[in-house]
Amino acid sequence: MTELRFSKQHDNLTNYMASEGIRLALFQDFEGMRDPTIRWMTRHPGDALLLVSSNIIDIPILIPWDVNMAQQYAKESYCHIVPYTEFDRNPYKAIKAVVENLNIPTGSRIEIPPTTSYPSFLRFVDALPDHDIICREDGTHFFTQQMRAIKDPEEIEIYREASRITNDVIAELEKQIRRGAFATEVDVALFIEQQARIRGCEGTGFETLVAGPKRSFGIHAFPTYTGEAFGTPGLSIIDFGLKYRGYTTDVTLTVAKGPLNRTQERMLTLVEKAYNLAVSMAKEGLATRELALAVDAHFEKAKKKMPHALGHGIGMEAHEAPAIRSRSDNEWILQQGMVFTLEPGLYDPVHGGCRLENDFVLTEQGLEQLTKAQIIRIPE
Amino acid sequence: MTELRFSKQHDNLTNYMASEGIRLALFQDFEGMRDPTIRWMTRHPGDALLLVSSNIIDIPILIPWDVNMAQQYAKESYCHIVPYTEFDRNPYKAIKAVVENLNIPTGSRIEIPPTTSYPSFLRFVDALPDHDIICREDGTHFFTQQMRAIKDPEEIEIYREASRITNDVIAELEKQIRRGAFATEVDVALFIEQQARIRGCEGTGFETLVAGPKRSFGIHAFPTYTGEAFGTPGLSIIDFGLKYRGYTTDVTLTVAKGPLNRTQERMLTLVEKAYNLAVSMAKEGLATRELALAVDAHFEKAKKKMPHALGHGIGMEAHEAPAIRSRSDNEWILQQGMVFTLEPGLYDPVHGGCRLENDFVLTEQGLEQLTKAQIIRIPE
Repeated sequence: MTELRFSKQHDNLTNYMASEGIRLALFQDFEGMRDPTIRWMTRHPGDALLLVSSNIIDIPILIPWDVNMAQQYAKESYCHIVPYTEFDRNPYKAIKAVVENLNIPTGSRIEIPPTTSYPSFLRFVDALPDHDIICREDGTHFFTQQMRAIKDPEEIEIYREASRITNDVIAELEKQIRRGAFATEVDVALFIEQQARIRGCEGTGFETLVAGPKRSFGIHAFPTYTGEAFGTPGLSIIDFGLKYRGYTTDVTLTVAKGPLNRTQERMLTLVEKAYNLAVSMAKEGLATRELALAVDAHFEKAKKKMPHALGHGIGMEAHEAPAIRSRSDNEWILQQGMVFTLEPGLYDPVHGGCRLENDFVLTEQGLEQLTKAQIIRIPE
Repeated sequence: MTELRFSKQHDNLTNYMASEGIRLALFQDFEGMRDPTIRWMTRHPGDALLLVSSNIIDIPILIPWDVNMAQQYAKESYCHIVPYTEFDRNPYKAIKAVVENLNIPTGSRIEIPPTTSYPSFLRFVDALPDHDIICREDGTHFFTQQMRAIKDPEEIEIYREASRITNDVIAELEKQIRRGAFATEVDVALFIEQQARIRGCEGTGFETLVAGPKRSFGIHAFPTYTGEAFGTPGLSIIDFGLKYRGYTTDVTLTVAKGPLNRTQERMLTLVEKAYNLAVSMAKEGLATRELALAVDAHFEKAKKKMPHALGHGIGMEAHEAPAIRSRSDNEWILQQGMVFTLEPGLYDPVHGGCRLENDFVLTEQGLEQLTKAQIIRIPE
C-alpha cells in the first residue's frame, strides 16, 4: 500500500511539473522554513532538501541533515539519499551539483519553494545563471499542498485511529476534571502529553494550551500553560492535538465551571450555535469562505466578533490547506478527503474565553465528525 | 530599568535606520516566520506586525493578532497598539495604512524582513508602488539581530537566573537517573517539563529530546521522546532548554551506562576533549569559525566527523546570533555580552550518540560557564 502510494504521489507530481514545463523542483524543510511535504513524499521526518525531476526515470534525491535518520525512515520511498555535508550544508551548492549530475539542460525551468526569501531567491539565480529559476505561490509547491489537502484512504484510516486515541484522552480528561483531579494548568497539559506518548503518539501536534479563567481571554494563551489554578469558577480552555504517524488532530474543550454570569452564559450559547451552524453547512462543493462568512454574520448579529479563522485543514501540519476563513483571498472549496477543524470562539478580557473545536473529514457519505470535544459544564 | 532599555533599543535602531536612509521598517512575527525582535522591543509575546519609523518622535506601531494579549504585555513599551483585524489581518493593507498615517513621503526607503518570500516581496512592491521597498539580509533586521546577540546587564541577569533553575533541574535529573527512577524516555521529558513550569519558567525553549541507547544515534531524535526504555546500557541523550522571562537555556547531557564498548568509550573521550578544547579557546575577539574549525580538525585527526555546528547563540530564540560553525560564510566574532552554546557531538547508527552542551556568557572577566551539564557515567 505504502509503496504504491509513494509511486502515485510521484506520478501526480511529475505529471503536474511536466504540464507546467518545470524540469526540477526543490523542496526545503528546515527550522524557520518547514515543509512536511518532504516527510509526506519520503517518510523522512525532516531537516532536508528534496529534489524532484520531472523526468519520471530520475529518482528523487533526498539530502538530509541527519543521514542516519534518513536511512532509517526513507528506505521504502525510492529516493537517493545524499548527506547534506557533501555540499557543506549549503543549498546553493547542493542544487548546482544535482543540476549537473542529472544533466538538466540550460534554460530549463527550476522551481524553488514559494517561501524562499527574496535574498535567497537572488542567490539561487546566481548559483544557476543559465537556468530559469521560478518562485511562485501557485506552482508546484502549492500543487503538493493541494495533493496533501485531499487525504487518501490510508491517511483517513490514520486519522480515524488518531481521533480514537484523541477521544480516549478527551474522555479521560473529562473524568479527571469532574473529579477535580487537576489543581493547575501544568497538571492538565502534562497529563495530555503523557497520555499521548504512552498511547503510541509521536507527541502533541503543537504546544498544548491550558488556560484557567484568568488567562482564557487569550486566543492562544501565553505562556501556553502555567502553575495557575485550573478548573476554578469561570471559563477555562484546553486546546491540544495528538500527532500520530505524522498526522495531528486538533481539538479545543472549554470547561465552564459555575457560577457563570450572564455574559459568560451568552458567550457559550453563541459559540455552540456558531459551531452547530458551521457543522450543518459544511458540505462538498461549498466555498470555505462562505462557511466562515456565515459564522461571522451569526456573531455580528449579537454584536460580537470572532478574532480568528473559523477553522483550517490539518494533516502533517497543525495548520494546512484548506483555509477556512472569511479573508477575501480565500478560494478553497470543500472536497472529499479533506480533514479540517471547525473552531468558533469568543474572548473577553474580563469574562474569559470560550472555544469549541473538533476535527472532521469529508467523505462520500458527507461530513464525518472525527473528534468529540465539547463544552463541559460543571455546576457550582 | 525596563523603560530605559526600550528607549535605548529604540534610539539605537532609529539611529541605524537614519544612517541607512531607511524611513520605515516592518517586523513580522507569525507562524512560519518567527521574529522575537517584536517581543524584545515591546514585550508582546508574538503574532504581530511592528512598524518602526526612523523619525524618533513617531511611536512604534504594534499590530497584534490578539489585541487583549498585546494590551497586557506591551503596555510599558511606548507603542501604539492597533488590532490586526483593522486591516483584515492583511500585512499589505496594514503597511499601506501606516505609510499614509505617518505621512511617509513617496520615494522613501521602506525595509521589510529579509525572510519575506519572493512572492510576498512582489506584493509589498505592488502595495507601495511609489516607495522604495528594501529586502536584504544585512540591513535593519540583521542590525536588530546583532543588537540582540549582545545581551545587556538585565538580560545577563535573566540568564543567570534561568541557568540557576536549569542547573537545579540538571542536579535533580542526575539524582533520579542514578536512582533508576525513570523507566522510559517519556518519564524524563515530562519530569523536565513539570520542573520547568513549577519553577516559574514559561516552559521548555524547544521540544525536549530524550533518546535512549537505541535512538541516540539521531542528532535530533525523532520522535523527540517515546515510551522506549531509558537508562539501559549504552549511550542516552537528554537535550533540553528552559524558557524563563523570554530567554531559553539549551543543554545536553549524555548518560553513559556501562558496560560500554571501546567505540563508545572512544566517542565519549573525543567529545569531552572537543568540549574542553572549545571552552579553552572561546575568548573575546575570536572568530567563531576559527573555534569551529579547530574542533572539526580535532575530530578529523581521529577520523571522525561532527555532523552539526559546534554551537550557536541563544536568547529569545533557541538558535540565534552568533553562529558558531565552520561554514565559510560565518563571519561572527565573539564579543562581550554574547550568550551561546558549545555542543560537540558524535553519532553512530550502531553505537549510539554522545553530545555535551552547555551555555556560556562572555563578560569583561572572560568566559563564564552558565550551565552545568555533564556526561554522566553510570557503572554497570
